[in-house]
Amino acid sequence: MLKADSWEQGVQTLLAQSRICFLSTRGKQGPETSMAPYALHGGNILLHLSGLAKHFSNIKTSPYIGLMICTPETAGESPLGLPRLSLQGVVAPVSDGLLERAKAVYLARLPDAEPLFAFADFRLFQFEPEHIHWVGGFGKARTVSLAQWRKLVGCS
Amino acid sequence: MLKADSWEQGVQTLLAQSRICFLSTRGKQGPETSMAPYALHGGNILLHLSGLAKHFSNIKTSPYIGLMICTPETAGESPLGLPRLSLQGVVAPVSDGLLERAKAVYLARLPDAEPLFAFADFRLFQFEPEHIHWVGGFGKARTVSLAQWRKLVGCS
Repeated sequence: MLKADSWEQGVQTLLAQSRICFLSTRGKQGPETSMAPYALHGGNILLHLSGLAKHFSNIKTSPYIGLMICTPETAGESPLGLPRLSLQGVVAPVSDGLLERAKAVYLARLPDAEPLFAFADFRLFQFEPEHIHWVGGFGKARTVSLAQWRKLVGCS
Repeated sequence: MLKADSWEQGVQTLLAQSRICFLSTRGKQGPETSMAPYALHGGNILLHLSGLAKHFSNIKTSPYIGLMICTPETAGESPLGLPRLSLQGVVAPVSDGLLERAKAVYLARLPDAEPLFAFADFRLFQFEPEHIHWVGGFGKARTVSLAQWRKLVGCS
């Protein structure tokens, strides 16, 4: 059992609550930010990206990217210290042998995305985190080890 | 008057609704994503950043950054096509002569941030967009010219 006010519980609440992430990719002129829905798969993060989007070509050239998952903003609350995860790591296409399983995991989390799998330009990627930083609020930040991460997302 | 379903109205609704943005900065190992509250000031975007945060040192080295403003995710709605703006441009400290005015504009939008101005490590920056891309939903994307942007945010 995790304590209700622990950082571990904070990470799990965030991951349960938010289904989108923000990518930081290396573009021709400099860093670019984009949004993508995501699903956890083991310790990795699945992304279903369109070949028409700029992040797709950026990733092909520079697969080491930044990824943020942030507590959704609400009108009534202060937006200053929203709990959030900032990750860095390498993104790569899901290999053919793992595709069916990964697709099922992705669609279990994001059933509305099913029609997009009929488009030839979309491809399923997996992001493997190397560095993970947690900000639980103002002045509450910490590095999360890969072992801690794997335990939190239930794959150790 | 803008049409209620126009892309211009979509941009204005987003800017009224969301008070946070996601930065893409160039870190030592690669692109990094972070979150910051923002306020519009003319055609620029004000950011109040802590010198203890990684994006602060990243910006000092590489002031050309990416910035995204995204419609907040809600539990009941599909997260796939959330309307969003992706901008790229240069970020720089607000000059001394403009500081009081910029601080007033920032605090009018984010009154909770007032105590942070007492911390010596925080500094007010302004981001000046050079490229602006609008995604209004699935398949609804367009480039926004700087003239269009300035008109939309009421400074032309």
